[in-house]
Amino acid sequence: MTSTRNDSRSAGDVRPAPGRWGAPGDAPELSDKIRDYLSREVGIASPWPPVEVDLSTIEPPRIIAAAIDELRGIVGDIHCSTDPAIRWKAAGGASYRDYVRQRGGETRLVPDVVVSPEDHDQVQAVVAACAHRGIAIVPVGGGTSVVGGLATERARVALSTDRMRTVLEVDEESHLVTVGAGITGPAVEAILAARGLTLGHYPQSWQRASIGGYAATRSAGQASTGYGRSDDMVERLRMATPAGDWSVGHVPSTAAGPDLLGIAIGSEGALGILTEVTLRVRTAPGARRYEAWVFPSFDAGLTTFRDMAHSRVTADVMRLSDESETATTLLMSAPGGLAGRALDAYLSRRGISRDSAALAILGWEGIDDSIIDARRGPVRDIVKRHGGVSLGRRPGESWRRHRFDGPHLRDALMDAGYLVETVETATTWRNLPRLYAAMETALRDALGNDAASSGSKPYVMTHVSHVYETGASLYTTVIAVADQSDPHGQWARAKTAVSDAIVAAGGTITHHHAVGRDHAPWLADEIGDRGLDVLRAVKATLDPQGICNPGVLGL
Amino acid sequence: MTSTRNDSRSAGDVRPAPGRWGAPGDAPELSDKIRDYLSREVGIASPWPPVEVDLSTIEPPRIIAAAIDELRGIVGDIHCSTDPAIRWKAAGGASYRDYVRQRGGETRLVPDVVVSPEDHDQVQAVVAACAHRGIAIVPVGGGTSVVGGLATERARVALSTDRMRTVLEVDEESHLVTVGAGITGPAVEAILAARGLTLGHYPQSWQRASIGGYAATRSAGQASTGYGRSDDMVERLRMATPAGDWSVGHVPSTAAGPDLLGIAIGSEGALGILTEVTLRVRTAPGARRYEAWVFPSFDAGLTTFRDMAHSRVTADVMRLSDESETATTLLMSAPGGLAGRALDAYLSRRGISRDSAALAILGWEGIDDSIIDARRGPVRDIVKRHGGVSLGRRPGESWRRHRFDGPHLRDALMDAGYLVETVETATTWRNLPRLYAAMETALRDALGNDAASSGSKPYVMTHVSHVYETGASLYTTVIAVADQSDPHGQWARAKTAVSDAIVAAGGTITHHHAVGRDHAPWLADEIGDRGLDVLRAVKATLDPQGICNPGVLGL
Repeated sequence: MTSTRNDSRSAGDVRPAPGRWGAPGDAPELSDKIRDYLSREVGIASPWPPVEVDLSTIEPPRIIAAAIDELRGIVGDIHCSTDPAIRWKAAGGASYRDYVRQRGGETRLVPDVVVSPEDHDQVQAVVAACAHRGIAIVPVGGGTSVVGGLATERARVALSTDRMRTVLEVDEESHLVTVGAGITGPAVEAILAARGLTLGHYPQSWQRASIGGYAATRSAGQASTGYGRSDDMVERLRMATPAGDWSVGHVPSTAAGPDLLGIAIGSEGALGILTEVTLRVRTAPGARRYEAWVFPSFDAGLTTFRDMAHSRVTADVMRLSDESETATTLLMSAPGGLAGRALDAYLSRRGISRDSAALAILGWEGIDDSIIDARRGPVRDIVKRHGGVSLGRRPGESWRRHRFDGPHLRDALMDAGYLVETVETATTWRNLPRLYAAMETALRDALGNDAASSGSKPYVMTHVSHVYETGASLYTTVIAVADQSDPHGQWARAKTAVSDAIVAAGGTITHHHAVGRDHAPWLADEIGDRGLDVLRAVKATLDPQGICNPGVLGL
Repeated sequence: MTSTRNDSRSAGDVRPAPGRWGAPGDAPELSDKIRDYLSREVGIASPWPPVEVDLSTIEPPRIIAAAIDELRGIVGDIHCSTDPAIRWKAAGGASYRDYVRQRGGETRLVPDVVVSPEDHDQVQAVVAACAHRGIAIVPVGGGTSVVGGLATERARVALSTDRMRTVLEVDEESHLVTVGAGITGPAVEAILAARGLTLGHYPQSWQRASIGGYAATRSAGQASTGYGRSDDMVERLRMATPAGDWSVGHVPSTAAGPDLLGIAIGSEGALGILTEVTLRVRTAPGARRYEAWVFPSFDAGLTTFRDMAHSRVTADVMRLSDESETATTLLMSAPGGLAGRALDAYLSRRGISRDSAALAILGWEGIDDSIIDARRGPVRDIVKRHGGVSLGRRPGESWRRHRFDGPHLRDALMDAGYLVETVETATTWRNLPRLYAAMETALRDALGNDAASSGSKPYVMTHVSHVYETGASLYTTVIAVADQSDPHGQWARAKTAVSDAIVAAGGTITHHHAVGRDHAPWLADEIGDRGLDVLRAVKATLDPQGICNPGVLGL
């Protein structure tokens, strides 16, 4: 048993500035090439600078002083705050709508009190106090929810997990590590690296999201085809519920009835607060190989990925961009001029036109090169059979280095006046083309009609991000000229249209972003009345007062 | 969409004779070598022939005629029976205690009525009728429960799934097949083989167990290290509950809240009756390679298996016998005389003594030999590093051919007067030696003391049957001279002792046999009061009258 403290980072480190992913200076400069491309392909936008928030517009806490005193008694005065600046930063949320609200200085949905307990026992006491008084409590880790998981109209205590960053136990023999729920991915990886281990969970929010957040939202990472989703990695959880302490999970596996761990995972704070997470970890890779390949079409790439899954010779990272995403990726990263023409010629000689090309990233990680070679050999054959052409390791390694850049680019695009948001889902291989078409059409129609007046058209691009034997996920990014007079309405209409389309086309309402409040209206379609009744019954058992993150999951 | 009927087998085919696995003539003859070994190692037993049941001792149904008429109206007269012979055969259960009861002609726990609906709608109607009248309903598939999943003291309707053997849909592109819950493994494999597919789920009960039973009990198969447990294969379920029709599961994956499919899997009939099961299937292997290896000790084998799991180079079947099980396996299958001495010399030259040897079976299945070779190469290195010595393919293939023989051997051993039963659990790699010792000691002490008077000692042998990155399962077989004057009491004391020991040593009360009624007293230790409260709440939602298999899971 080892205990390593690593709780030096303050909340401010993790959540640098509401309304954007990075600090204002971190956003990349948009090159003329990209500006021209956007103006041509999407439309001309006007700069859209954030408004400096006026903290005096934040209302005083709606929670009675006696309750706040009680919370102070539990966590200590300095860890229970009603300071508007701290409440503003703890509001969290990283969806387009959250950013629009935060960049507009809208303070309506900030929490009333922010408490930062240091361990399970303090969390349990805070939960008990809130339950006793009927006060809503919402956990905040990295604040990276993109589904409205953190904001409610009700008076609420925001429970920050920032101080719960202890490594509680490392069992190297069993490849298990138990951590406080507030620890972030980079902190976990640093601690594991020193022992030759890795978690391997890399959601795009990796730099800021907390491990508790991974588990609470059933998240998946960029390497989850190989390393597994958060639900594959989480082996045990401890939760502070209004009904009391709940420890759940049996390593490595059990047939002892229904899977209760699977109820705690993905519970989004609606049943209680996750405090301790036991994770399955892996031997840190001694070797890595990331490659880019180009297919003659998105369809050819899909068939290849399906054949790989059916042959059980997958890579750890399997990502396939459609034609639109391939075009922008090549624009942003591939060589222009003479070298660009050389690339075109190279592809053309192999029967691939750049216009219909689909770019794939395949990444392997393993103990050593020989194991990677053994896994990669059969893949090479399948890829080539479907007309795939190798671009080699350089673009693969470049993707790996830049894989957390997307949210920073979004900051720059919003500054420049563009709406940028993502939508994701999953379905069976057979249903994938139908879902893909339905999703893209819904987004193009909704935002195209909206934006018609300003002469712009939405840019929609998609990639497959996770591959299963039975199907795959689709991750779609949309860029449009923001309607700065009604940004909420503009996106709300598109979000409704695309969510309706996803459900109608047999997709899940979320493959790895969770439900929150934004997807709650579509959850009933997906799980049915019976499923909702089961969730309500579990909620009533663990949270009879209904104080735990009210509204998420439609509960 | 394809629909293939395959419901020609009657209940009698699947459950040949209560009290034994095979027909009376099917049990293998015990050779003199084995009889001598048993007499020497366990003790001298007296023949213990089954008693012919007296069907007139079966009480008339305790269910009112109006209810039986209603059930007949739903399923048709010939599919709703109160015939004592049919009720006797539908009692099911294949544990030692079940067999003792059945072989003794004890008719106390037979069901009152046996109904055989043909599809989901009929099941739903039967469930509704029973719920309305408060009559208990217990599903019976292959009748192979070894945990008391099928018998209750209450008046009950046994719902046989024997007629629900339709293949409802095959989606070859997505590798998904939907079947009626009553179909057996061999029937599914035959249908899939014609399409070049396989399920790959081979529990020892494979010849008789139903797919619905796999899902209801969260079972694992002999190849589940590679093919996954039933909970990995089940992608969607349809259940007829007293609260109504419940379809659950989203393929291939979702982050839409808590995992409701995981609640339906392992629910053991306590929430409703599983009627339709959608399974992930695989490309049928074009190549197979099963090999036997010998390690210098069980410990060396454990370390090897752990290193394989940690290096992510597992086989599909990974089975490692301890020294006791290795000794009996070699006795029963390895050459004697000159050839036996040659084997000893072969092992001895490689530093292995037969007395401390641990036998392993490693099996790979894949599209073709090249994929198997690629997977097997790195394993070979790891195995050799830990002193493993190859015995080649012949004993591996022999294991594969005979892998369903165990239950037939048990028939012969019980006929000869021996108690034979199995116990299974799982834990982390770190905790495995402690659990192994605790389990074996508890069984030896409990049965050794019991049997002391008859001068016998229990023979306890164990193998690792399923391997995970974080731990492994343990599967223990115990043979003792049966106390024919009190066989129930003899095993009940041992079962209590070993279950207490398992839980105290940190093991799960069941890794793949399920909870039933036999393990229910230990479930609370494992999942805690909070876990039980959650199960009770789910049960109250779906089965408010408490008619669904009352007693299993302690509900």
